[in-house]
Amino acid sequence: MTAQDFSAWTRAVQARVEEALDTFLPPADRVPHKLHEAMRYTTLGGGKRVRPLLAYAAGALFDADPQTLARVASAVEMIHVYSLVHDDMPCMDDDALRRGKPTVHVAYDEATALLVGDTLQAQAFEVVAGADSATLPPARQLTMVRLLAQAAGSAGMCGGQAIDLDSVGLSLTREQLERMHQLKTGAMLRVSVLLGALAGRDLAQQELQALDAYSAAVGLAFQVVDDVLDATADSATLGKTAGKDAADNKPTYVSILGLEPSRALAEQLRRDAHEALAPFGDKAQRLRELADLIVQRKA
Amino acid sequence: MTAQDFSAWTRAVQARVEEALDTFLPPADRVPHKLHEAMRYTTLGGGKRVRPLLAYAAGALFDADPQTLARVASAVEMIHVYSLVHDDMPCMDDDALRRGKPTVHVAYDEATALLVGDTLQAQAFEVVAGADSATLPPARQLTMVRLLAQAAGSAGMCGGQAIDLDSVGLSLTREQLERMHQLKTGAMLRVSVLLGALAGRDLAQQELQALDAYSAAVGLAFQVVDDVLDATADSATLGKTAGKDAADNKPTYVSILGLEPSRALAEQLRRDAHEALAPFGDKAQRLRELADLIVQRKA
Repeated sequence: MTAQDFSAWTRAVQARVEEALDTFLPPADRVPHKLHEAMRYTTLGGGKRVRPLLAYAAGALFDADPQTLARVASAVEMIHVYSLVHDDMPCMDDDALRRGKPTVHVAYDEATALLVGDTLQAQAFEVVAGADSATLPPARQLTMVRLLAQAAGSAGMCGGQAIDLDSVGLSLTREQLERMHQLKTGAMLRVSVLLGALAGRDLAQQELQALDAYSAAVGLAFQVVDDVLDATADSATLGKTAGKDAADNKPTYVSILGLEPSRALAEQLRRDAHEALAPFGDKAQRLRELADLIVQRKA
Repeated sequence: MTAQDFSAWTRAVQARVEEALDTFLPPADRVPHKLHEAMRYTTLGGGKRVRPLLAYAAGALFDADPQTLARVASAVEMIHVYSLVHDDMPCMDDDALRRGKPTVHVAYDEATALLVGDTLQAQAFEVVAGADSATLPPARQLTMVRLLAQAAGSAGMCGGQAIDLDSVGLSLTREQLERMHQLKTGAMLRVSVLLGALAGRDLAQQELQALDAYSAAVGLAFQVVDDVLDATADSATLGKTAGKDAADNKPTYVSILGLEPSRALAEQLRRDAHEALAPFGDKAQRLRELADLIVQRKA
């Protein structure tokens, strides 16, 4: 497979996910209109779709069923989008720009933003639990629901956000910062990989461990690169407000390690991610390329 | 069974649900402390537990497994509590008092209230999907997840709240008001009944229809009585701010039908609920008593 292949694959997955999200979201002409419009406004037509790409790349390891992959990819993206919508609200990060567009509470209002996030979370569980049991055995599907709930909840994303809130103005150690990000972004990246793989078949303990090692490296790399970009890129490139972490006095890898050591760490994590995939051979090519993309991205 | 029985049964269920919620919520001494403390603050030690009572009463129809009942009762209560926490926030109803205590955004802060709600929703799905598959077959458990997600999302509770928001200042017809409440509160009451019954066994189509007729009558009665109480009781009795609907210019049964016709409607719905339960005989006694409780409550 060549770099050309990868970029075509990425675009094809993004298009398939866009189509699936369009199907799984309530239509805009159904009551309540404003809620459904706002759900579609914030979910469709944007985003790098990193989590869906991870799900599809992990699905490729075990030739996963396309319908099931479309479901799990849509579900993890819905959870991610809901977290952005709530995170951008005035009582959290108070951000006006996301994916190059006004955030939901700016384009609509705060109450709508709150409900959009709440509804997207419920919808994600409905989508995961809605697969055809002829294709996906109920026991495995139930495992997916449980993993998604754990990744989204207090032992995952929400817990990480709470630690993040509690850390504003504090000087965290590198270990504390890492723990926060493992929960805040790492848990959802990990579950994207796991759900994609489970869309193929049940996992052996060793396979689970290899995927967890990959996810841990990629998850951390993702955050380190985010911090580097926040410190170096401009808002137009990012599609969100740049330099916010420093302005908000939030601890980042750049503030703890410095810029160049952060870049070196990201590169080391990229190599760790590749190494973790060794047992899967050629079938892990897309996961390798995604690790490269995550570290080398410019936005 | 006598009235004495019912009141003892109610207290026993409430105690069992309190214990189950305590088990299913993250411990307060686990990081992030504030999030977990706030989740426990708002979920434990209060509330009428109407949804858990409905689940247990429906479970009694089919001699449901107690462990499974504790799970589904906790899950529906977590969804209900999360909706209260978000509903009370300044961008929604801006309410300072709930179940006789300061609301979460008052006792903690808005960001914590947002995260408490988000986390409770995820936790609810984790709890429902976490039953022992030896007791509860995965296919039925998956049906429960799907029903809960539908009841919580845009075709249920969240959709109803969005219609409610869109209706402020408008004069709704009785049909529009009814539709709003079917979604806003009715969907979660219905799913409480269904999940309790499913904790016992799969339902035949006729049983499902009977339970739906019961739930529809009880759900509507619940809202009519809420409106009557909002117009007639004081805040100390309600444990929340009384007279808010009129102050917020929200359409209610009392504003559309008048006070006495609203009371008569509630009584008619109570009789409808009893009638729907005829096929179940004596085993439906608790569901009948709950319909009576819902209509005759003073808070």
